[in-house]
Amino acid sequence: MSAFRLENVRLATCLGDGYGLIDDGVIDVADGVIQFVGGRAEAPPTSAEIIDGHGGVVTPGLIDCHTHLVWAGDRANEFAQRLHGVAYADIATAGGGIASTVRATRAATQEQLVQQTIPRLLALIREGVTTIEIKSGYGLSLEHERKQLRAARQLSQQYPIDVVTTLLAAHAIPPEFAGDADGYIQVVTDTIIPKLVAEGLVDAVDAFCEKVGFTPAQTKRVFEAAKAAQKPVKLHAEQLSNQQGSALAARYQALSCDHLEYLDEDGVRAMAASGTVAVLLPGAFYFLRETKLPPIDLLRQYQVPIAVATDANPGTSPIMSLQLMLQMAATLFRMTPEECLRGVTCHAAQALGLSDRGKLAPGLRADLCLWDVTDPAMLAYQFGTNPLHACWIQGQRR
Amino acid sequence: MSAFRLENVRLATCLGDGYGLIDDGVIDVADGVIQFVGGRAEAPPTSAEIIDGHGGVVTPGLIDCHTHLVWAGDRANEFAQRLHGVAYADIATAGGGIASTVRATRAATQEQLVQQTIPRLLALIREGVTTIEIKSGYGLSLEHERKQLRAARQLSQQYPIDVVTTLLAAHAIPPEFAGDADGYIQVVTDTIIPKLVAEGLVDAVDAFCEKVGFTPAQTKRVFEAAKAAQKPVKLHAEQLSNQQGSALAARYQALSCDHLEYLDEDGVRAMAASGTVAVLLPGAFYFLRETKLPPIDLLRQYQVPIAVATDANPGTSPIMSLQLMLQMAATLFRMTPEECLRGVTCHAAQALGLSDRGKLAPGLRADLCLWDVTDPAMLAYQFGTNPLHACWIQGQRR
Ligand SMILES: [Zn+2]
Ligand SMILES: [Zn+2]
Repeated sequence: MSAFRLENVRLATCLGDGYGLIDDGVIDVADGVIQFVGGRAEAPPTSAEIIDGHGGVVTPGLIDCHTHLVWAGDRANEFAQRLHGVAYADIATAGGGIASTVRATRAATQEQLVQQTIPRLLALIREGVTTIEIKSGYGLSLEHERKQLRAARQLSQQYPIDVVTTLLAAHAIPPEFAGDADGYIQVVTDTIIPKLVAEGLVDAVDAFCEKVGFTPAQTKRVFEAAKAAQKPVKLHAEQLSNQQGSALAARYQALSCDHLEYLDEDGVRAMAASGTVAVLLPGAFYFLRETKLPPIDLLRQYQVPIAVATDANPGTSPIMSLQLMLQMAATLFRMTPEECLRGVTCHAAQALGLSDRGKLAPGLRADLCLWDVTDPAMLAYQFGTNPLHACWIQGQRR
Repeated sequence: MSAFRLENVRLATCLGDGYGLIDDGVIDVADGVIQFVGGRAEAPPTSAEIIDGHGGVVTPGLIDCHTHLVWAGDRANEFAQRLHGVAYADIATAGGGIASTVRATRAATQEQLVQQTIPRLLALIREGVTTIEIKSGYGLSLEHERKQLRAARQLSQQYPIDVVTTLLAAHAIPPEFAGDADGYIQVVTDTIIPKLVAEGLVDAVDAFCEKVGFTPAQTKRVFEAAKAAQKPVKLHAEQLSNQQGSALAARYQALSCDHLEYLDEDGVRAMAASGTVAVLLPGAFYFLRETKLPPIDLLRQYQVPIAVATDANPGTSPIMSLQLMLQMAATLFRMTPEECLRGVTCHAAQALGLSDRGKLAPGLRADLCLWDVTDPAMLAYQFGTNPLHACWIQGQRR
């Protein structure tokens, strides 16, 4: 692997509490790893290739820590029907909603899943995403959850992006278990989790704890199975109502709890105690025209790290843009630009349990974005111009 | 100019009330003009080059009919300050807000304005925009309004996009006229409008009629000057309050009234009678976290054509994405995907007084977008993947 020095840049290291800015900074990379980060005056001599950043800002590579990127079919027609006044209940009765995505995903081959996901993945790569989490959850059986996770792994091999997989078999009740959520959870805990973990397809285990999803008791069974398989957990929690899922997840040292519009102070306190990251998903908030804001001030007060992600999925966030999520986190959630940037770098890394990235520091992966901006606040303020100038993943320009 | 036939496509002609779909369609182009539009069976013989659209959708080139794209400086820092809790009044007192953009724009040369605008223009070109309206309004003097409009014209010569200019000298009161709005309006009506019209820099005249802008009486004076100069008018109306600006504009056969959150039924009726287009700006609605929706149902009831645009500007819509405006018009305004598409094609053309584009029909400009989608609703439903496959402006592939 090549060695280089990137200089004449402002470094937003994400060390400390804010941007962790170093003006007139230098960053040395060799063997895919950051070797030096600091001001020009402190930089050691080098014989490596010099890259002039022309005064731009360098951040860690962006991390999208919550996506459902692998699916088949689309729901544009259903979206149009809704806007023409058709009730959701009628669409669901006609086989629409998540059921249609499950049908299409089951019907697709692994290769078809990969092909349909590529444009979505490329959209995120173009924006500077170097690590992405991809969940299963549209297969809802051993065979089809496996296929989804394999597609995610395959994408990681074919494209210059690191993929972290999350098994979300407990996303919805599959049609063959209609009315028998407990029966399906037993398959999840006794078969799907242990087998797919054993096959090396699972980096973490997730569930959808909600009135329209799984109960806390069922969620707990999923967490126990994950624990038995020695995999970390995370949870879709308090999106539509307060189920106290976050406190439950915190008892299992969850990496993250995600959505959180209905999170209460007890839940925040529990997350703070367990070091669980709050992953906020402004795309779903926007798309569902939610008005209940996640408790940002409480999260700040208890110093719960806040991440921001796309939640990219065909039902509630058909929006493949992490840069837009920065804009929305600032505009809709009133997060500061510093919080927005940390939400897609250091805190997103923490939400995935990755300690080797998300900041600019010696010894970490050289996943870097060079932006044509002078003020990092531009990344949260202006949208559409995509100021990404260059991107490196493990020191390789992509 | 080359001649070609585009076939194996779905044509969304925007004729009639909806998409105006023609399945398995054919479109013939020669000399920059559409020669034939129809089904494969009706297509005449041709010896022109054949382009296979692989089953994608063809729409008219997109038209962004309301932008303030030419400005200097940025307000990322001000955005950050607001999110850190600084009051707008304090920012304004410190010289922020529109005053800072006016200062930066006045300080820039025409070439600097062009250079700073290019990334924003390219963002829109990448999305399939073939015609864009650009307003002045950050110069606020003869010299600097001229410079802004010249920059807009220059961009049209340097990039493959058609630029329509709007003189918006009545955007704000310049510092040298503080407390004397009437005095400034006199300069606008007696000097700026006639001179810049005579120089060929003005396609239409606009004003900002609002409590924090100009009164209806001042607006009327601007309209009279435009009428004397034989230029059509349009108006920023009813954005923050109901000033009955739309009814006033309708009396001057305005091409469009724009924003319109506070428009009432009398105003809708007046716009319907005068054939004035309602230009909705979901980006500003979103960025300002407005909750009052424009009266979509009334506009439908009175059959007022609805256009959708970016309002791209540094203060209230720093969002350079017309595709995102389609998503937002559907999500936030509950416009149907058909309405969204017509809002950036045929109705946007009407808002600019252009009868030679915005639809797919023989004799119109061959401004075309070919999209990698099978259902045009995808353009309003999914965001981020930019399914633009190819784009032609006056029959030239760009
Ligand atoms: Zn999710
Ligand atoms: Zn405007």
